Amino acid sequence: MNVIDLIEKKKQGKTHSKEEINFIVKSLMNGTALDSQISAWLMAVCFKGLTEEETANLTEALASSGKVVDFGELSNLVVDKHSTGGVGDKVTITLIPLLAAAGIPVAKLADRGLGIAAGTVDKLESIPHLNTNLSTETIVNQVKNINAVIASQADDLAPADKKLYSLRNLTGTADSEVLIASSIISKKIASGAANIILDVKYGAGAFMKTPEEAVHLSKLMVNIGKMVNKSVTAIITSMEEPLGRAVGNSLEVIEAIEFLKGRIETGDLALLTYSIASMTLMQLDLYDDKEEAIRYLKDLVHTGKALEKFRELIIAQGGAVEVIDNYDKFDLPSFKVECESKKSGYVQNVNAYHIAQAAKILGTGRDDNSKKIDFSVGIYLNKKSGEYVNKGETLYTIYSNDEDKTKIAQKYCDEAFSINESKPLRNNLIYKIIGNKDEDNNV
Amino acid sequence: MNVIDLIEKKKQGKTHSKEEINFIVKSLMNGTALDSQISAWLMAVCFKGLTEEETANLTEALASSGKVVDFGELSNLVVDKHSTGGVGDKVTITLIPLLAAAGIPVAKLADRGLGIAAGTVDKLESIPHLNTNLSTETIVNQVKNINAVIASQADDLAPADKKLYSLRNLTGTADSEVLIASSIISKKIASGAANIILDVKYGAGAFMKTPEEAVHLSKLMVNIGKMVNKSVTAIITSMEEPLGRAVGNSLEVIEAIEFLKGRIETGDLALLTYSIASMTLMQLDLYDDKEEAIRYLKDLVHTGKALEKFRELIIAQGGAVEVIDNYDKFDLPSFKVECESKKSGYVQNVNAYHIAQAAKILGTGRDDNSKKIDFSVGIYLNKKSGEYVNKGETLYTIYSNDEDKTKIAQKYCDEAFSINESKPLRNNLIYKIIGNKDEDNNV
Repeated sequence: MNVIDLIEKKKQGKTHSKEEINFIVKSLMNGTALDSQISAWLMAVCFKGLTEEETANLTEALASSGKVVDFGELSNLVVDKHSTGGVGDKVTITLIPLLAAAGIPVAKLADRGLGIAAGTVDKLESIPHLNTNLSTETIVNQVKNINAVIASQADDLAPADKKLYSLRNLTGTADSEVLIASSIISKKIASGAANIILDVKYGAGAFMKTPEEAVHLSKLMVNIGKMVNKSVTAIITSMEEPLGRAVGNSLEVIEAIEFLKGRIETGDLALLTYSIASMTLMQLDLYDDKEEAIRYLKDLVHTGKALEKFRELIIAQGGAVEVIDNYDKFDLPSFKVECESKKSGYVQNVNAYHIAQAAKILGTGRDDNSKKIDFSVGIYLNKKSGEYVNKGETLYTIYSNDEDKTKIAQKYCDEAFSINESKPLRNNLIYKIIGNKDEDNNV
Repeated sequence: MNVIDLIEKKKQGKTHSKEEINFIVKSLMNGTALDSQISAWLMAVCFKGLTEEETANLTEALASSGKVVDFGELSNLVVDKHSTGGVGDKVTITLIPLLAAAGIPVAKLADRGLGIAAGTVDKLESIPHLNTNLSTETIVNQVKNINAVIASQADDLAPADKKLYSLRNLTGTADSEVLIASSIISKKIASGAANIILDVKYGAGAFMKTPEEAVHLSKLMVNIGKMVNKSVTAIITSMEEPLGRAVGNSLEVIEAIEFLKGRIETGDLALLTYSIASMTLMQLDLYDDKEEAIRYLKDLVHTGKALEKFRELIIAQGGAVEVIDNYDKFDLPSFKVECESKKSGYVQNVNAYHIAQAAKILGTGRDDNSKKIDFSVGIYLNKKSGEYVNKGETLYTIYSNDEDKTKIAQKYCDEAFSINESKPLRNNLIYKIIGNKDEDNNV
């Protein structure tokens, strides 16, 4: 077997055997295949695709290229959640304590953010001293002790995926569905979870622009899950406007804490958190009835049990737990600017992509892994779609450390809002749930 | 401008501007583009192609990536000839002295062979001490002095093409027509020729399998030639069976010398040499009438003028000129084996690819540039298609230094010959001539 022949095979649209896929991944890892050869193969895959079986084989080969986390007797129970990335998406921070409070072991292993979106790990690190660089052993023990961990994915988990991911970003081959699917699922296999919950987003602030694309990718991931003996459920959600009201790092953690305190009971953040959490309870056969599951989950919030879990997680990971009761313990921005609406009317939409651009300018994200991010800055949406705003009323608030950047961010934010007199039609946040237990569930 | 955007642009099938093509080639040369990025781009080009204008722009960018040979006052006259590669193809060695004897300055800058085919430069180096590694200055002076040079293409000519060529061979992207065309023409531009003669081969022993592919590639190269102000003429020829009777290094040079001595007047080698030479005289407006041109050329052979030019070339390049009169001055193989025909009948075909494989096993070529080739070994076809052979009569002769290799080579050769009782239909050697002076000329 040689790599050039395999590149040519894929170029001709032929199907690789399991042995061939393993050979490619092995050659990538031991350096017998050049980056240039792997990149040419990736581009051929973009044009000719992979069958589901090839994709599952690639997924397994990537997953087994390094260590696999072993949760011992908890192995069949552990849940991991992954979002394909959205603006203002702090659902991991609301969801993990909630599920842990429900007695479910949750190990969220996450990447850092790159590009416009900050990652969950970055957001969480806005809590002073909180450590997300945990050893595999620490991760396993923390899950056994308190049911919950949020850690950055260690370099020795699925290292072949890391190499491939980096090549994909360099060579314009990042957007292939089969490469996205195998990358996501391989990481989750390596992180040891048996139950994988995927939040697959579409819309202006997401990688995928249409629900159809998101459905297609979701079905693929659910099917691959079956082939590699993992339970995968995907919830397909709209990312036209930012999730919740806060976009930034500490700002988003504060919003998540507010939710865990029971102070945010309506709106997209609450809806999505309860939907994913109830879906998980049902996937694990703990509840049959969605409404009943949600009542139970709301009770965990109202009794303070979910917040207590978050407190335990912060303490376990060495963070300044006092932030929960005193938000001033977060890094604070130099100033905030409350920006007024220039007209009266209903907010029709807040374009997630423009808000993400504004946030990036303020310093919430990074362009490459060497850059530091600014935890304190961000944007708070005082109004969201469907809400009425009077001319002169605050539309959004910018938290910033730089006046020039603030001005540019303001331009992007102004562009993000569309306001007119008619009340907008409500957009469904949740488009569909695709699981491997039942057929497509429309929500 | 950045390379990733340009890869994505080509992946989407969009057209690059001249600036974009220049940027890609410049980034390849200065290392700001990674090999992996260029390889992904090459694969995207394989799928989405390049327009003729893009191909011409790529050709010019590759050509101007290094030195360009300057023949001074001869610039508009100099001829270079290129063959897309065939088995037993020694036409460069017969053609260059013949054209030089006709008063035409010819500078043949050639690559070394790789894979099954030995290159012209390798073949010529079977003449002891002959040097083909000439400086640009030496090349120019030798053309001015004796009208003829055959040299290996120096590293500083079209270095971007060399890089791209090497990546193409590693990444399964060698077979794209636009990449082949730009590579060939860019080298010829850099080697300073104004008049480019291309022998584009198709068939069992060639890269292209059908005449249609060869025609398509030829038209593309002629058109690119027009766009970059070079006169390009392509002769499309069949490579079903080896050209001439000798396949090897010194064996092929000996056959070429026999031709220059006027001892080979019929058959494919003579036909193709005179056809290309007369086509060149006509392209240069030295002759209008093909028959007249051929009469003149035959006269140059019969009067010994062509052989005299070859003698001058060998002397100028430091070679052992005594080989011309005494073939024993070449490296000699340890033994030869005359292989008998197992049946009587007409030879229907001698499969060029099988003969090439046999020759390679004997040691005529190399798998990578670090390997040495064996100048002395090879195969002589005592019978070719259309000729009658009696059972027990010599069909071919193997020249070898190794008995085991000889046995394997013999198997390939036996497989190459098909013999039966009916006289085969004559295959046309020359399929078509495509030039930029006139429209398609059928031969």
